[in-house]
Amino acid sequence: EYTYSAVDRKAVDTLRVLAADAVEKAGHGHPGTAISLAPVAWQLFQNVMHHDPADATWAGRDRFILSAGHSSLTLYLQLFAAGAGLELEDLQALRTWGSKTPGHPEYGHTDGVEITTGPLGQGLASAVGFAFAQRRLRGLLDPDAALGTSPFDHHIFVIASDGDLQEGVTSEASSLAGHQELGNLVVIYDDNEISIEDDTDVAFSEDVAARYEAYGWHVQTVDWLATGNYVEDTEQLYTALAEAKAQTSKPSLIKLRTVIGWPSPGKQDTGAIHGSKLGGEELAGLKTVLGFDPEQHFAVDDGVLAHARSVGERSADYRSTWEEAYAAWRGANEERARLFDRLTAGELPEGFAEAFPAFEADFDASFSGGAKGMATRAASGKVLSALAPVMPELWGGSADLAGSNNTTMDGEPSFIPASRQTSTWKGGPYGRTLHFGIREHAAGSIVNGISLGSLLRAYMGTFLIFSDYQRPAIRIGALMGTPAIYVWTHDSIGLGEDGPTHQPVEQLASLRAIPGLAVVRPADANEVSWAWKTILEKTDGPAGIVLSRQNLPVFPRDEQGFAGAEGTARGAYVLLEATDDSGSAVEPQAILIGTGSEVQLAVAARDQLQSEGVPTRVVSAPSLEWFDAQDESYRASVLPDNGAVRVSVEAGIAQGWAKYTGVRGAQVSLEHYGASADFQTLFREYGITAEAVAAAARDLLGR
Amino acid sequence: EYTYSAVDRKAVDTLRVLAADAVEKAGHGHPGTAISLAPVAWQLFQNVMHHDPADATWAGRDRFILSAGHSSLTLYLQLFAAGAGLELEDLQALRTWGSKTPGHPEYGHTDGVEITTGPLGQGLASAVGFAFAQRRLRGLLDPDAALGTSPFDHHIFVIASDGDLQEGVTSEASSLAGHQELGNLVVIYDDNEISIEDDTDVAFSEDVAARYEAYGWHVQTVDWLATGNYVEDTEQLYTALAEAKAQTSKPSLIKLRTVIGWPSPGKQDTGAIHGSKLGGEELAGLKTVLGFDPEQHFAVDDGVLAHARSVGERSADYRSTWEEAYAAWRGANEERARLFDRLTAGELPEGFAEAFPAFEADFDASFSGGAKGMATRAASGKVLSALAPVMPELWGGSADLAGSNNTTMDGEPSFIPASRQTSTWKGGPYGRTLHFGIREHAAGSIVNGISLGSLLRAYMGTFLIFSDYQRPAIRIGALMGTPAIYVWTHDSIGLGEDGPTHQPVEQLASLRAIPGLAVVRPADANEVSWAWKTILEKTDGPAGIVLSRQNLPVFPRDEQGFAGAEGTARGAYVLLEATDDSGSAVEPQAILIGTGSEVQLAVAARDQLQSEGVPTRVVSAPSLEWFDAQDESYRASVLPDNGAVRVSVEAGIAQGWAKYTGVRGAQVSLEHYGASADFQTLFREYGITAEAVAAAARDLLGR
Repeated sequence: EYTYSAVDRKAVDTLRVLAADAVEKAGHGHPGTAISLAPVAWQLFQNVMHHDPADATWAGRDRFILSAGHSSLTLYLQLFAAGAGLELEDLQALRTWGSKTPGHPEYGHTDGVEITTGPLGQGLASAVGFAFAQRRLRGLLDPDAALGTSPFDHHIFVIASDGDLQEGVTSEASSLAGHQELGNLVVIYDDNEISIEDDTDVAFSEDVAARYEAYGWHVQTVDWLATGNYVEDTEQLYTALAEAKAQTSKPSLIKLRTVIGWPSPGKQDTGAIHGSKLGGEELAGLKTVLGFDPEQHFAVDDGVLAHARSVGERSADYRSTWEEAYAAWRGANEERARLFDRLTAGELPEGFAEAFPAFEADFDASFSGGAKGMATRAASGKVLSALAPVMPELWGGSADLAGSNNTTMDGEPSFIPASRQTSTWKGGPYGRTLHFGIREHAAGSIVNGISLGSLLRAYMGTFLIFSDYQRPAIRIGALMGTPAIYVWTHDSIGLGEDGPTHQPVEQLASLRAIPGLAVVRPADANEVSWAWKTILEKTDGPAGIVLSRQNLPVFPRDEQGFAGAEGTARGAYVLLEATDDSGSAVEPQAILIGTGSEVQLAVAARDQLQSEGVPTRVVSAPSLEWFDAQDESYRASVLPDNGAVRVSVEAGIAQGWAKYTGVRGAQVSLEHYGASADFQTLFREYGITAEAVAAAARDLLGR
Repeated sequence: EYTYSAVDRKAVDTLRVLAADAVEKAGHGHPGTAISLAPVAWQLFQNVMHHDPADATWAGRDRFILSAGHSSLTLYLQLFAAGAGLELEDLQALRTWGSKTPGHPEYGHTDGVEITTGPLGQGLASAVGFAFAQRRLRGLLDPDAALGTSPFDHHIFVIASDGDLQEGVTSEASSLAGHQELGNLVVIYDDNEISIEDDTDVAFSEDVAARYEAYGWHVQTVDWLATGNYVEDTEQLYTALAEAKAQTSKPSLIKLRTVIGWPSPGKQDTGAIHGSKLGGEELAGLKTVLGFDPEQHFAVDDGVLAHARSVGERSADYRSTWEEAYAAWRGANEERARLFDRLTAGELPEGFAEAFPAFEADFDASFSGGAKGMATRAASGKVLSALAPVMPELWGGSADLAGSNNTTMDGEPSFIPASRQTSTWKGGPYGRTLHFGIREHAAGSIVNGISLGSLLRAYMGTFLIFSDYQRPAIRIGALMGTPAIYVWTHDSIGLGEDGPTHQPVEQLASLRAIPGLAVVRPADANEVSWAWKTILEKTDGPAGIVLSRQNLPVFPRDEQGFAGAEGTARGAYVLLEATDDSGSAVEPQAILIGTGSEVQLAVAARDQLQSEGVPTRVVSAPSLEWFDAQDESYRASVLPDNGAVRVSVEAGIAQGWAKYTGVRGAQVSLEHYGASADFQTLFREYGITAEAVAAAARDLLGR
């Protein structure tokens, strides 16, 4: 319920002064919004949100996302005030090596930080994923409870800045949020009209409220300048928040007009207070205005702090109410409770390993066209459908390419408001098939949000080329170690006639460049099975599975010299060993390393070289990251330092491959953009062929 | 003026049938919108736009941008109809190797294609750049002419799809277009409510018209389904286009409700006709509906074609009127005409080479803190200000980081409507300093558009980390070979306390991965001068100049053994030669290769190694792409195969460096994310130090 007593005010003013002190001590940082948003965040953390300062991971908590990550102090100060793990010395260590208070909030680093933010737009866009996940998880665990009565009901609160609202990813996610009628999402837009280039009017004059109404949001305006003077009407804000929570079929935007840095006497309402310390004089002025002693630094009145931290007791009441509801739910939902326990424990379901299909060989050793093969995207679709009944926590969809990406689990309903069903897609609010629209970037942020904000695993599909649109989301997911999954199909010039705008050439290299992301490019259908299995077994970071449009041979496994596909899990493995004339395994003189659709070229090139008397090994290397994580002895067993020449083949740039081909190595690669033609012509014209692989090996061997 | 005679209709229907025939022959493609948009494009090319089929580069032409690039036939058919360079055999060669009619329109490949499109959103976002450029160029050449009377007045017409409208980059650019009051921009939004997952209602239910009104656009709705039946009311469309052109202070959106594939009898209004051939039966059905012989393919009535191509004669009238106006302008504006001629010829201005500042050395050979140095971003700002009076075609700005990116030329006015001036930024509609807002992606698309659509050179600035937001724009710019310029500052963990969300680690590698993009990371202020000079001398592709936040030593040039900075233009050069005890140049035993802020580490490491008796060369390598473009003998002179060990040092991932460090090589690199702390601590903790470089060399030398 709303309160804003004298001691509340004193606490808020204390936090403002702490913000300024912390930045002053660090010498740098973002004091402006930390000062002016202190009463806003106070309302959220002290009066509005359900949270337990003693338990940052309590399942019943509301989620708070500071999309304006540069204002990290806004969050740190509330965590300090509520006694949620930060103390004064943490604030004093702002932005220093090893502190709990880095420049931007970092997930996994500071308790109470639900998500890493800083790159603008990502927080708000991922909040849509949090909201999706809440609804889907409720659908799995407690679908029939009346809204607001389930232990799995909670809200997602966001503070967003002018910068967030300008970023395109926010537009994409907000359009989708309105479409999805996300009543559990409440965004406070800090409309302070100042960004780094000062008055935002130099670049940003749209009507944000009208835009959000156009998206289907519930929009309220709270204008603290309405009277002509600046009045922090926290009751009006509280009322708006209550109204937003009462809106159960629309996401809510509260456009809150603030003055950045208020009441800093000389720098409020200027760009100067956005991202720089106040300086001694201004800092003293701020303290004086607020009735604090300018000579004191980091001064916190014990009584004020005790008052703030009593929020823990107040939360305890709600928490115990929740525990009762939760216990009642467990009693009435034994099977669902087992699911919840399994998900909470991070365990895979029973029957997981058995669910993955094995695909029959479809391989023509003469490469004369006798085998049809299977596109790896098609195999991926079969794996997903096989997983559907076994792994309820897995869900996902495509950015308007469902049929092309093979991302739809057979027969699973769409995740959409009932009124949005179409003739093609049936479903409901608890559905499983996601429809992101043509919004690749938001889709990435959303799968990040789902993976962070819930116990679910989510995937999204698009063409590999459009991973470029998702890069900021992919990167921040990798930085956070969130296990989002990307299904990237049409993975090379092999997509053919759509031409160079759609043909990835540098994407494999540029994605491998992202620390913590696993890029997995299976060579055939059975590697697809193993790739999915391995991806789902890992929970420490994102992965992208990279799939062909065109059919690829399905190699015979454990016969004709081919290894089984289980080596996929180790990132690279010996697919075909070098042999002598009698067919016995021998030390290779040449090692051909391929990924995805080019492994078949290595296989064919091996035939040529073997027939010329060169014992040749083929290594299939679906994931260089997984391979790098193997121990030294395994890696040396696959790529021995025995003097063999090594040739890599991949229909993309060679960048990064020299590390694997070593001192006697070469790469068969594509160093330029593709063209619009059938894929057979492109591979031939660009020299991505078995002949080129064999020739490169011969060159290195001096033959 | 509006016409839509019986022969017009016949021509349009002929084009519909040709679209279907072309896709049928290819076996794949996008017939749906090519069929339904034929009358729309016909109005533009035959009745509305000023263009000269015989001269695709005529300066007075209106520009047409097909943002819905997958509907490439929409454009190809009009170029064929107007006689603008495509013939029937080109349509018959759709999507085949070497044809003029690739799957998506490609700039530089087919006359009349103003910009490569396909990745959704890029076309419309770049159109905003075309519109910016038109206004700026008019400001340079003919600022006082009444609107609509100048030979430099033209419009930019765009056809955009549902997909374009969903992409975030479009939102960013459209918000900025409204803000900039771009009266020269007219967008037809093909509201066909079908995308690849069929009915767009599954993911896209926002009120697009209201959203564009919120951006400040002039919005009209033309609903060809308004009567209940589908009626292609081309007069209503024509009137809306006329109204849009009459709106001189707002960009215009015409929301045109169409039925995709109409009147294809069985597949209109379905996802099936979006991206697949019709199939024999449906194709015959379409021809029958339109009164064509189903047995004939690629049938074009001579009279119909002659009628269509008479647009050339009609355009000739306008063209001659324009030529008169142009001649009058030349007579009255001699100096401006010289500027126009120079820009048209692609020549650099007089005084160009002399304009670049030389910076005084500020280097402490003992590395004991005796030199302050200069951040390369600061040097870049000085270069830009020095160029301002010399090179009027150069302009640019920042995505809300002007002060941090040092992208503002001293004293130059902002490019904004007069009413949008702020206390910090003064300017007007013909101004020079761009303000993109916090919209990095649109900024990239806009500099692409400026570089393509005009004679101007444009740059945009942001932090290097946010190049991730711009990647689709950077890539398509590189694919087109458009000379857009990116100013990427805060280029490593050297940015310090903002932490890992803001610290680029993999961006240098991932940008170098883009074919055709030059990544230029100068080591000191004088390399900055040379980098800018070289970037501006090249016009065949985009470049990014990568700059430090922190101060770097300004090396003494042509003294103390340091080479001059002119080697920057060759991408890599010997900065310091290996010497013997007497100081004479000798064959190096170690070669240390650095870029940017790490070159100073190589210099310091060389001191250590030389003092230990290891003759050591330092190579500064600001641009690996420029270096790769040098001839073999130059490259071998910098990195000889003389058995010397090579160590690279760069505060980013090593990916790609093995190519340069070779068989006896090592990399001092950073393979993980950074942290929030001062940069000195980060470099030390992560081992990006002179000691580490020297140690790596010793290791390789077995010392």
